[in-house]
Amino acid sequence: MHKGIAHFQVGEKIDGYLLIKSVAKGVASNGKPFLTLQLGDHTGEMEAKLWDCNPDDETTFVSSTIIHVTGDIQEYRGKLQLKIKGIRPTTAMDHVKLADFLQCAPIDPEEMFAKITQYIFEMKNANLQRITRHLLKKHREAFLEIPAATKNHHEFVSGLAYHVVSMLDLAKALANLYPSLDTDLLYSGIILHDLGKVIELSGPVGTTYTVEGKLIGHISIMVNEIGQVANELAIEGEEVMVLQHLVLSHHSKGEWGSPKPPLIREAEILHMVDNIDAKMNMLDRAMERVKPGEFSEKLYAMDNRSFYKPTFSN
Amino acid sequence: MHKGIAHFQVGEKIDGYLLIKSVAKGVASNGKPFLTLQLGDHTGEMEAKLWDCNPDDETTFVSSTIIHVTGDIQEYRGKLQLKIKGIRPTTAMDHVKLADFLQCAPIDPEEMFAKITQYIFEMKNANLQRITRHLLKKHREAFLEIPAATKNHHEFVSGLAYHVVSMLDLAKALANLYPSLDTDLLYSGIILHDLGKVIELSGPVGTTYTVEGKLIGHISIMVNEIGQVANELAIEGEEVMVLQHLVLSHHSKGEWGSPKPPLIREAEILHMVDNIDAKMNMLDRAMERVKPGEFSEKLYAMDNRSFYKPTFSN
Amino acid sequence: MHKGIAHFQVGEKIDGYLLIKSVAKGVASNGKPFLTLQLGDHTGEMEAKLWDCNPDDETTFVSSTIIHVTGDIQEYRGKLQLKIKGIRPTTAMDHVKLADFLQCAPIDPEEMFAKITQYIFEMKNANLQRITRHLLKKHREAFLEIPAATKNHHEFVSGLAYHVVSMLDLAKALANLYPSLDTDLLYSGIILHDLGKVIELSGPVGTTYTVEGKLIGHISIMVNEIGQVANELAIEGEEVMVLQHLVLSHHSKGEWGSPKPPLIREAEILHMVDNIDAKMNMLDRAMERVKPGEFSEKLYAMDNRSFYKPTFSN
Amino acid sequence: MHKGIAHFQVGEKIDGYLLIKSVAKGVASNGKPFLTLQLGDHTGEMEAKLWDCNPDDETTFVSSTIIHVTGDIQEYRGKLQLKIKGIRPTTAMDHVKLADFLQCAPIDPEEMFAKITQYIFEMKNANLQRITRHLLKKHREAFLEIPAATKNHHEFVSGLAYHVVSMLDLAKALANLYPSLDTDLLYSGIILHDLGKVIELSGPVGTTYTVEGKLIGHISIMVNEIGQVANELAIEGEEVMVLQHLVLSHHSKGEWGSPKPPLIREAEILHMVDNIDAKMNMLDRAMERVKPGEFSEKLYAMDNRSFYKPTFSN
Amino acid sequence: MHKGIAHFQVGEKIDGYLLIKSVAKGVASNGKPFLTLQLGDHTGEMEAKLWDCNPDDETTFVSSTIIHVTGDIQEYRGKLQLKIKGIRPTTAMDHVKLADFLQCAPIDPEEMFAKITQYIFEMKNANLQRITRHLLKKHREAFLEIPAATKNHHEFVSGLAYHVVSMLDLAKALANLYPSLDTDLLYSGIILHDLGKVIELSGPVGTTYTVEGKLIGHISIMVNEIGQVANELAIEGEEVMVLQHLVLSHHSKGEWGSPKPPLIREAEILHMVDNIDAKMNMLDRAMERVKPGEFSEKLYAMDNRSFYKPTFSN
Amino acid sequence: MHKGIAHFQVGEKIDGYLLIKSVAKGVASNGKPFLTLQLGDHTGEMEAKLWDCNPDDETTFVSSTIIHVTGDIQEYRGKLQLKIKGIRPTTAMDHVKLADFLQCAPIDPEEMFAKITQYIFEMKNANLQRITRHLLKKHREAFLEIPAATKNHHEFVSGLAYHVVSMLDLAKALANLYPSLDTDLLYSGIILHDLGKVIELSGPVGTTYTVEGKLIGHISIMVNEIGQVANELAIEGEEVMVLQHLVLSHHSKGEWGSPKPPLIREAEILHMVDNIDAKMNMLDRAMERVKPGEFSEKLYAMDNRSFYKPTFSN
Repeated sequence: MHKGIAHFQVGEKIDGYLLIKSVAKGVASNGKPFLTLQLGDHTGEMEAKLWDCNPDDETTFVSSTIIHVTGDIQEYRGKLQLKIKGIRPTTAMDHVKLADFLQCAPIDPEEMFAKITQYIFEMKNANLQRITRHLLKKHREAFLEIPAATKNHHEFVSGLAYHVVSMLDLAKALANLYPSLDTDLLYSGIILHDLGKVIELSGPVGTTYTVEGKLIGHISIMVNEIGQVANELAIEGEEVMVLQHLVLSHHSKGEWGSPKPPLIREAEILHMVDNIDAKMNMLDRAMERVKPGEFSEKLYAMDNRSFYKPTFSN
Repeated sequence: MHKGIAHFQVGEKIDGYLLIKSVAKGVASNGKPFLTLQLGDHTGEMEAKLWDCNPDDETTFVSSTIIHVTGDIQEYRGKLQLKIKGIRPTTAMDHVKLADFLQCAPIDPEEMFAKITQYIFEMKNANLQRITRHLLKKHREAFLEIPAATKNHHEFVSGLAYHVVSMLDLAKALANLYPSLDTDLLYSGIILHDLGKVIELSGPVGTTYTVEGKLIGHISIMVNEIGQVANELAIEGEEVMVLQHLVLSHHSKGEWGSPKPPLIREAEILHMVDNIDAKMNMLDRAMERVKPGEFSEKLYAMDNRSFYKPTFSN
Repeated sequence: MHKGIAHFQVGEKIDGYLLIKSVAKGVASNGKPFLTLQLGDHTGEMEAKLWDCNPDDETTFVSSTIIHVTGDIQEYRGKLQLKIKGIRPTTAMDHVKLADFLQCAPIDPEEMFAKITQYIFEMKNANLQRITRHLLKKHREAFLEIPAATKNHHEFVSGLAYHVVSMLDLAKALANLYPSLDTDLLYSGIILHDLGKVIELSGPVGTTYTVEGKLIGHISIMVNEIGQVANELAIEGEEVMVLQHLVLSHHSKGEWGSPKPPLIREAEILHMVDNIDAKMNMLDRAMERVKPGEFSEKLYAMDNRSFYKPTFSN
Repeated sequence: MHKGIAHFQVGEKIDGYLLIKSVAKGVASNGKPFLTLQLGDHTGEMEAKLWDCNPDDETTFVSSTIIHVTGDIQEYRGKLQLKIKGIRPTTAMDHVKLADFLQCAPIDPEEMFAKITQYIFEMKNANLQRITRHLLKKHREAFLEIPAATKNHHEFVSGLAYHVVSMLDLAKALANLYPSLDTDLLYSGIILHDLGKVIELSGPVGTTYTVEGKLIGHISIMVNEIGQVANELAIEGEEVMVLQHLVLSHHSKGEWGSPKPPLIREAEILHMVDNIDAKMNMLDRAMERVKPGEFSEKLYAMDNRSFYKPTFSN
Repeated sequence: MHKGIAHFQVGEKIDGYLLIKSVAKGVASNGKPFLTLQLGDHTGEMEAKLWDCNPDDETTFVSSTIIHVTGDIQEYRGKLQLKIKGIRPTTAMDHVKLADFLQCAPIDPEEMFAKITQYIFEMKNANLQRITRHLLKKHREAFLEIPAATKNHHEFVSGLAYHVVSMLDLAKALANLYPSLDTDLLYSGIILHDLGKVIELSGPVGTTYTVEGKLIGHISIMVNEIGQVANELAIEGEEVMVLQHLVLSHHSKGEWGSPKPPLIREAEILHMVDNIDAKMNMLDRAMERVKPGEFSEKLYAMDNRSFYKPTFSN
Repeated sequence: MHKGIAHFQVGEKIDGYLLIKSVAKGVASNGKPFLTLQLGDHTGEMEAKLWDCNPDDETTFVSSTIIHVTGDIQEYRGKLQLKIKGIRPTTAMDHVKLADFLQCAPIDPEEMFAKITQYIFEMKNANLQRITRHLLKKHREAFLEIPAATKNHHEFVSGLAYHVVSMLDLAKALANLYPSLDTDLLYSGIILHDLGKVIELSGPVGTTYTVEGKLIGHISIMVNEIGQVANELAIEGEEVMVLQHLVLSHHSKGEWGSPKPPLIREAEILHMVDNIDAKMNMLDRAMERVKPGEFSEKLYAMDNRSFYKPTFSN
């Protein structure tokens, strides 16, 4: 299969490798079990039904398995659906590997890491610089892999790093226009604000919440880590508390998960920069699939609005 | 008086010209009337009490009058207050003029107008360009004078123009980072979004709401004007409706005055750009008066929060 | 088929003409496609399933088509459902016409128009009279056809005109009891308040929202039209702004779509008259189908309440 | 004093009898006590200050006392205020009586009672008729005296009876337009809906809430009374429960004091009729004092809105 | 069948008697009707599907019928489901009785009644004692049978009595810690607070709301009964009104069904005791089914939260 | 002065020592400055006015100063007020000490500490026991001094310790009734839940919020400390995370300051126990001052309700 799953049309036939991203069992109205598979590759995803499956199928076709599949592309409720004709699990003989089937950030992780490192390198405030460098280094591996969220925005491999890089560039542009901003503080806050997700989320594939993620949450996790790093590095200035405040308040309101609202100028800006980058990511991906003169699907994380693409837009 | 009112300290004496920005009558507990005057110049404002005033005083010392005053600076409830010892209205002989007593935008109005004109000049979409140019030209005089609001942010002479210029520069920076944005549409929306305030507000000094401002509001006023200009210029493309939508939705939510939420990418960004620039203006002006390690006064338009200035901030 | 679809019972057989009001595709658990058809005539609607349909069926049986159908009436989840045995599209040979299959207002459109015209004729304020007459005349055709809403209340052919006539009669009764009301203003506001729906809605059958309806909305559409008509007719009195305010505020609150709340006595009354007539229409139609001692289905637009019909009611 | 307090202007002198409606003690900034008196007659009220009062004054000038007063009318914060020069309590020698100093409904109580009795007389449902007649008769005296509320609307002697009569007339007009309404039920509900206020409120002058009013409230009080009357009269039909429901639900929502929302058509209409009559009463009284082209004071019970009187209004 | 339905595992076969707790009809995608049965015994419930049923089945297998069934236990969407192989209604020959198939409170009703009677016996305030004893005696039979609610908490036979007993014991413990509490009043309030449910709910099996339950509600029902009992017993002290207030306010807020908030110390405590006991009941039953280190299903009545069972818990 | 300030009546004279709890400056309407002093001792507080004060007075009579005062008790707006006749600061010669002028918990701090220690001693879970003991010991001194809050409940010296002891006793009673509760976890959570206030609050007298209190808050402060103590003590079990969750969630909702809602049974109970004890403390103190048959003042932290004391209460 040469072209990605995202480029198939109704009526075409498929014959190739796909990754099972999630599975749900069902019982059909004739009493027989079936599986609803979410199949994907690096270009996108499509739902598929495996009718009349047997108990073996249920243990073979599980999440994160790469399969070989043949079938027809149909339409169901306005979405494409794959009608499976043949399906088998892959073996070493198939020479396929997981990484080839995942959606990734458009920039190489190492390149993003270098860029973030440069931002840290240029900081003048040694306390902020040391805490930020230490924590980024500590969680480097997971940070470069995990998505920024389980859904809604930047939900792809290396999504968090991509989100952080975009936010840094946006913050730099803002600081040029509003010179009162303390860039060292703002950049530190951006780099660390979601870093607790390396513990909150299970990993880059089939991402779910860990127990610690559910009970403590990435905000409190990172606030704790900042405190512990400051201890380890024997840093005692007000920067520790202020940086904890930036992380603590970056969701802006109690009902959105921040126990304190932003009470420092850079905390307020951090929240807004986070908001803009997340929304632009959602909008860009939604509008890509919309033709001029039409409305997008409803975007849940944007108050369920459908966005319009003007006919005069390019 | 050489130094501005904003630079006086408790215990100092004042002897010079000031503008009456607003007046309120009171009756003291001994049954005698008094006036509470808000006096100001181009640097700021201070409250003053005129005790035991007579009926003539009430008709002499009215809003927008320039007076000559002598008195002592005292403190009352954490704020400075002027205790008036002598006060008289000015005449032609005093050689004072209103413009010298008003807070103004830090950039010259003509310079701002030239900058906005350049943004319009570079537009490629002729429909958006013609509507925007026509309306800006029509309301040029008032646009260059009025504040962006009666309080909270950019509430000084030429405040609206200053707000628009800042938003344009911010939008340009954003468009560099997110190339999917239609800059012609976004710039048009920014230039027109608050232009209805030339009719909603009474003018640059002692600004209040007009009857039309109260009953119709600047949003609907400008949506109507865009429709009428399109009629006059015989413009029929979808740009008219889309531009009306940007103005209509720039307050984002029904309860904030927008009958439609943003449903176009540039409408969403317009709202966020408006928000950032207004907040940065409020924060910068509030934090100017705060020492490191202290909290600002409560900022009403920012959910009544007091902001902290870190001790390590410059 | 002589009796209307609303009068069939479980177990009866149907053999006659019906209109397809909407269609949805599905895939059955055996993998075969089927169609869910909403079929109706001037008395009401019923759902029908067309199992094992082929691709031709999907292009033949589309919305707004009149079909000939045979089948059995069954019950499914407390609602009647038609099990289709035979179905075919109609041709000129069938001598059926769309108008015979639509639910309509109980009064003839021309009669309603004459009644509204009489209300306008009796106005003493020439400005209000001229604007109202001009706009009603301009949109006469669509006004007499469209429903008052796509669902909830008065969602039938000529529903808007019927709603306006009822509101006028109700307003007249109120003005008798509260003589302080300016009837010219109140009647004008009633006639124009929803007139923007002629542009917001697609038409009398299979009614949906137009792009302009979604982006601008009937309230702002009509406020603009009032401004333009005043221009054309060279009317300059305060009536223009006041009438715009009545239209602008008739949804009463920002979160319900009005950028300004009612700030004029007649605006407040207009909102309440609109509310009463819409609710009485919903209640009357819901309670018709309820037996004494039982509760109605849940009424979504009335906070999801089920209403009770007392046993002593007639 | 021949003309009423409501007709005095700034600068005039007053010399006549007034009723003390309420009193509040204060201590002036010179440490001396003073009294703030709310003085009124049948036309309206005005605030007055009695400076440097002695302990005797505090026991002499109490609420519900008629006094003779001389003084000057001044203005304070946009409201008229009486500066007291001479004040004394009245005795039998003054030949003044309370009733002459109270604001009353514009219709004679007995006439209103006759009108309500006629509505009851015409009822066809004997159960509703007997319960309503019995309760009205039981509480006749207080019902004809008390206001409809302690503030906001119909807050004058016989205000409740006046409110009920207006609502009955409005309900009759509605029933003509919407013949599905059960008028016996609706009229019974209107007559009884606020009758519990005879126990909730302390009486016609200086009205406050009783302990039972605060702990149980007029709604539950009347629901209980309906139940007890039905017991006494041995009435057993569903009318009892339905009438209780109408009283229970007439505030429409839990947060407004109704433990059940309206679930019967007449209950919904009862709420709306109550709402319209209360609002028209508030608006009429507020707009009386407003000149064309100006805004009213803020009306607390109408979401704090200021209403505008158009220049073309009569 | 010896072991209860709650103890079956996937793959086991069932052959025994079960109670039909509720039934819903469906139409399969092949057009044939089927029944979804909720089957249960005294240990719990399980869903079962009866495919291809005929019209007789629909009238035979109705709610509250005891059936004999054979089939296999399967899993569907994480829940066990019974695949019916054979099913028949029972007759007198089967020697089964309803009581054996219902979930009941863990304490014998008579024992609970004795315990509550003892609480009443120890009261010192004769008025509270007489009212409470009279009402409990009047509704004794239904009180000992009905659940405390139709779902969420204590939704089993004698659930209300069990809830009351737990609350009394909890109130006694609280009164030991906070001696200012008036235990007579608090115990009376607890015993009567939900007693109106004997009229609000239909009965112990297949519990639904009665018409009076929907239109008046258990709170107002019991407030009325307290008033009537006081009349009958000629009790006139403030205890009547105060006890009515406790019942009236025990849901704490208007939007939760209480027309008055708690305004007496014991009323506030009654609400909190009710709250704690309901939540502990929900939590205990939910956590029973959860293994250490896992989360419970979402609990609707507890803000849809999933609760975690720590690994170190016993 | 032998009797406490709380026992003085209007008309009495005062001559003795009092503590200045807070001071506010004012300017009288004659232009002269005055001080409003809040004066108190271990029994309560009273407001006092010092008229015509000079600059020395402002620096002498500051918060936390013990003064000797003579004057008269008057009434102002329903509250007692002290009219100062003579006032002087105290010196070593007066032999007065701060501790004698403060309101304290009714139990000796050491006794409370012993009681809490006993609860810890009886824990079976070593991890919970060690963390709790370590943190209590670390903050022992401040813990035994500070109030539980700056206002509303337990706002007296040792208020926090008193609150914790009451909560432990209440939790013990609950655990007897609901044996599923893990008492080790619940007691640990209670002891630590507010311990962060030793850093959030400034101290036992004239209590205000520290910068860290405002920016981070006592919840996050203690969550961090638990993590650090676990590190120091090398404790690695799930107890650490679970205990952090209990502290994190004890305000129950995001808008009340908890970034996570309670997701563990003991966390839910901890919140409810906290709530009950705080409310009983507020109610007991408010109702002490109320006579039977009267209402309390409005209690801000209890939704501004006024509570009624029944006439039959003891």
